[in-house]
Order: sequence, then structure tokens, then C-alpha cells
Amino acid sequence: MSQMKSSSSERTSIHDMLKETSSNDNKNNVVSSVETKSVCPYSRSVPSNLNTCTSSPAILTPTTPSQNNDAAILKTSSKIENLKNWSISTYKCTKQLMFEKLGKSSRTVDAELEAQIEQLRDTQRKYSNILRLSRALTTHFYHVVQTQHALGEAFSDLAQKSPELQEEFLYNSETQRNLTKNGETLLGALNFFTSSMNTLCNKTMEDTLQSIRQYEAARIEYDAYRTDLEALTTKIDGSADLDDAQKNFEVHRQNFMKLRSEVAIKMKFLDENRIKVMHKQLLLFHNAVSAYFSGNQTALEATLKQFNIKVKTPNSSFPSWLEH
Amino acid sequence: MSQMKSSSSERTSIHDMLKETSSNDNKNNVVSSVETKSVCPYSRSVPSNLNTCTSSPAILTPTTPSQNNDAAILKTSSKIENLKNWSISTYKCTKQLMFEKLGKSSRTVDAELEAQIEQLRDTQRKYSNILRLSRALTTHFYHVVQTQHALGEAFSDLAQKSPELQEEFLYNSETQRNLTKNGETLLGALNFFTSSMNTLCNKTMEDTLQSIRQYEAARIEYDAYRTDLEALTTKIDGSADLDDAQKNFEVHRQNFMKLRSEVAIKMKFLDENRIKVMHKQLLLFHNAVSAYFSGNQTALEATLKQFNIKVKTPNSSFPSWLEH
Repeated sequence: MSQMKSSSSERTSIHDMLKETSSNDNKNNVVSSVETKSVCPYSRSVPSNLNTCTSSPAILTPTTPSQNNDAAILKTSSKIENLKNWSISTYKCTKQLMFEKLGKSSRTVDAELEAQIEQLRDTQRKYSNILRLSRALTTHFYHVVQTQHALGEAFSDLAQKSPELQEEFLYNSETQRNLTKNGETLLGALNFFTSSMNTLCNKTMEDTLQSIRQYEAARIEYDAYRTDLEALTTKIDGSADLDDAQKNFEVHRQNFMKLRSEVAIKMKFLDENRIKVMHKQLLLFHNAVSAYFSGNQTALEATLKQFNIKVKTPNSSFPSWLEH
Repeated sequence: MSQMKSSSSERTSIHDMLKETSSNDNKNNVVSSVETKSVCPYSRSVPSNLNTCTSSPAILTPTTPSQNNDAAILKTSSKIENLKNWSISTYKCTKQLMFEKLGKSSRTVDAELEAQIEQLRDTQRKYSNILRLSRALTTHFYHVVQTQHALGEAFSDLAQKSPELQEEFLYNSETQRNLTKNGETLLGALNFFTSSMNTLCNKTMEDTLQSIRQYEAARIEYDAYRTDLEALTTKIDGSADLDDAQKNFEVHRQNFMKLRSEVAIKMKFLDENRIKVMHKQLLLFHNAVSAYFSGNQTALEATLKQFNIKVKTPNSSFPSWLEH
């Protein structure tokens, strides 16, 4: 039990496995050839000689589905088959993870790829922090602009009613009104920035990280079947078992290699995309912020035009990023 | 009872009278001459011939204080005297207010002064709104500056760790850091503005408004005794009562005139002071805000120097106006 606990903190924990497996219950059938294209992190493959083993004879009748063409029984049988396969695979993967943790089993390591993955996770964390801060900036700045709008109105009202301080109230009113107008333009730029950062962090990067999690699961599965095969090879008897183990090993090796190559390609494209997006967004952020805070309205509007950003009508109810 | 209720919504309600009276319990003695300097809104003056009337003979012995020199009895007697005076005055003022409301009694009106008072109350309301808005602006802007500080750090960190986007992160980091620095200077100016506005609205103006409330109470009292006198004048008998009423009328007339002249003077000085303070504060507010939002750091610092404002150390825990 204590071992179970220690593994639950892993990225690919048993809980994750259980979750992902349950949603794939009806899709996975018995793997019979290397052509299986499943990208599911845990394809529930079992040796074919286990097909006749039943742990619930009360439900599963000894007849085969083809003999009575009973669809219901076929379905039940298939479900039990899936459950069995899942149990075996979960057991194998859990054992592999435990043994890796205890140093009793070797794991396949692609140092370069793993370093890149770690780097990507770190980048996502850092960019998410920038996203969080820029959202906070947008909200606080939105409130500043709203208050400037109210102040502009209050000063204008006082300018009309205080001849003794008319000039003073007037220029303050004008300043606040100008700031409100420019502030709304800057808010447009800030909203665009946060929206793009949100897409990058929580969609683009997340998509690749999802593939990485599948790859990492396939690696454990591959190592589990590799360990099985190595254990059988050292034994002299049971050549039939060895054949099955060899087959299973090959299936999982190919799945693992496929996912590894997919991840490598995705990471390469993601990196190119990320640099492109960030270059554009950081330029926009800088130019818009600089233009606004140097009172350069023309430059601010030019920046928004350059990045095809449409500013909402003044005093729109709330920052648009809340809609995302 | 319904009349009592309708008068309670008045500015100088019975509740106000009760409150102010209770705090002045031991200060007010029987008014015996027109020399009384009391500025208390409701000096509890009663005609001297009422001195021997006691509504609580069980407590007040018929002996005079000088006969037995008993300090306790003297004190009790004085307290009962005050209570009696307060009752009479409250009754008179309440009756006067009711009759004014019902159009059964005339009221002394100084149209010019009353217009000035209404104007002052309106100005205080409007300035309080400016104070509320500028406080809100300071708070929101404080949060903007704090977020800019955090963003500056985050960009700087990413600049060090992302050679591919080093330049982009660097210039954003520098911009945010500059804005943080200037923002803290502007916060100094905003705090100075809100602090001065707070003093003007809630101390200087409030002091004059307090005098106005006293003047308004004295006006009711004066009108109450004037009505009394007028009622007695129409009667032929009771020349002793008429003398007392005449005396009381004179006492309250003088108190009313004194407070009216005080209020007029205070309002004149307040107006001069208000214009001076507002001229300075509106100039500061405008110059500081304009300098900051046009990125003119030199002008911003010059403005603060001009108004002798010391800026707190960067990242001070919270806007200083919260301390007021």
C-alpha cells in the first residue's frame, strides 16, 4: 500500500491510467498484429492464449459468440475481455513503475528528448505566469480606465459649476478623457496579447504535452513487456510463452517508437510556432505599452492596426479576456 | 406622535438635539443675561421665574443650596434644572419646527447666506466624489504598478533563459521596470492629492458645516422665542411674562446674530482657502498625471519637487492614504 502511494505522485500515475482506460473501454480490442494504429496511451493488449481464461464463468458461457450469434453475450464477453486486458496491462505497468522506482528494473531513456520535454514543461509554466500577470494587468488597468472616465466626468461637471476654478477643472477633465480614450485602445492590445498567450499555453502547448503524456505511457508499457521478455529469455522452458512475449514486445516497441517520433516532430513544430507567436506578441505588447505610456496616441493606433486588432466600443462592459 | 415622526427627518431633528444636549449637560446653566457667550446650538435658557417650579419635589428639597451647603443636593438640583430647561427648549424648538412645516409660523430667512450654505454643501458633496474617485484611482493604479513590477521580473527571467527571444523579453522587461519606477513616483503624487482632498472635505469644510449646523439650530431657537413674544404681545394681560419673553427673545436674537456673523466669516475664509487649496491640488494632479502618461520622468519628478512631495521607497506595502 505504501508503494502504491509513492507512485501516485508520478505524472503517469495509476489513477491516470484508470481514468484514461475507462474512457477507452469500448474502443480497444485484442491486439493481434503490429498494424494497430492506436494512439491511446494504454492500448490494452494481451497475449491471444489468454482468450479462453475467464474469471467470471457465471456470466460468460463456454460457447463462443459465433455459435449462437447472441449479440448481448458477445458484448458482455467483449467487455470482460477488455476488463481482463486492462487488468493485465495495469498490473504490468504498475509493476514496471514500482520496479523502476525501487531500482529493480531498467527504463528506456532518450536523454535528449527528455531534456526537451522538461524544457517544454518549464516554458509552459513560465509562459502561464506571464499570462496570469498580463491578465491581472488587464483587469487592474481596466479599472484604472473606468475610474479615469468617471473622474473626467466629475471634473467636467465641476468646471461648469465652478467659475473660480474653471480652468483647473477643465484641463484635468480633458486629460482624464484623453487617457480614457487611449486606455481603451491599450486594453484592446492587452486583450489581444492575453488571448494569444492563452491559446499558446493552454491549446498549442497543451496539445503537444498531451502527446508527450501518451509517449511516456507507451514507454512504460514498452519497458514492461521488455522486462517480461527478458525474464522469459533467461528461462529455458516455455517456448510458446516466449513467442507471445516476443510478439507483445514487438507491438509495444513499435507503438513506443511511433509515439517517440511523433513527439519529436510535434516538439520541433511547436518550438518554431512558439518563437513566431512570442516574437509577434512581445513586439505588440512592447509597442502598445510604450506608445500608451509615452502618450503617443498615433503610435498606439498604428500598432493596433499593424496587428489587425479591433478595439471594442468605449466602456464595453468588461475586459474581453473574461469571455475566453 | 405623527408630528414627531415627520420632524425627525429634519436636519436639526429632535434626535440631534437630544444628542447634543446630553453632551452639554453640565456646561449649560440658567441664562440670566445677554452676555452669555455660549456657542452651543441649544443653550437651555428658561425664564428666571420658572426657577422655583419643580416637577419632582420628591428629589428637590424646598431648601436652597446655600442653606445647607450640601454639594450633592446642589448638583442634583442643577441637574434637574438642566433637564427642565432642556425640556422647555426642546418643546419650543420642536413646536417651532412643526409650525414652520405646517406653515403656521414664520421663519427668519437670510436668503443670501442660505444660498451660500446650500452651495457649500453641494461643493462638499462634489469634492467628496472627486476624493472617492481619486482614492479608487490610486488603489487601481497601485495594483497596476505592482503587476508591472512582477511582469518586469518575469520578462527578465525569461530573457536570461530564452536565447531565441532574448531581445524581445529584454526590452519588455526594461519597459515594465521603468513604468514601475515612474508609477511609484506618480503614486506619491496621487497620495498627496487624496490626502489634501481628504483634509479639505472632511476637516476644513466639515468644521464650517459644524458651525452652520449650530447657526441653524440657533435660528430655530430664536424663531421659537420670537413666536412666543409675538403671541404674548397680542395679549393684554401678563406684563411680567412679556418682560421675560422680551429678555429671552433678546438673548436668542443675539446668539443667532452672533452665529450668523461667525458663519458668514467662516464661509468667506473657507471659500478663499478652498480656492487656494484646489488650485494647487488640481495643478499638481494635472501636471503629475500628464507627465507620467507622456513618459516624461523629468517633468514628473520636477512636479513632485515643486509640491514638496517625498516619494516612499519602492514597493511600500500599501498606498499611504489608507493610513488616514
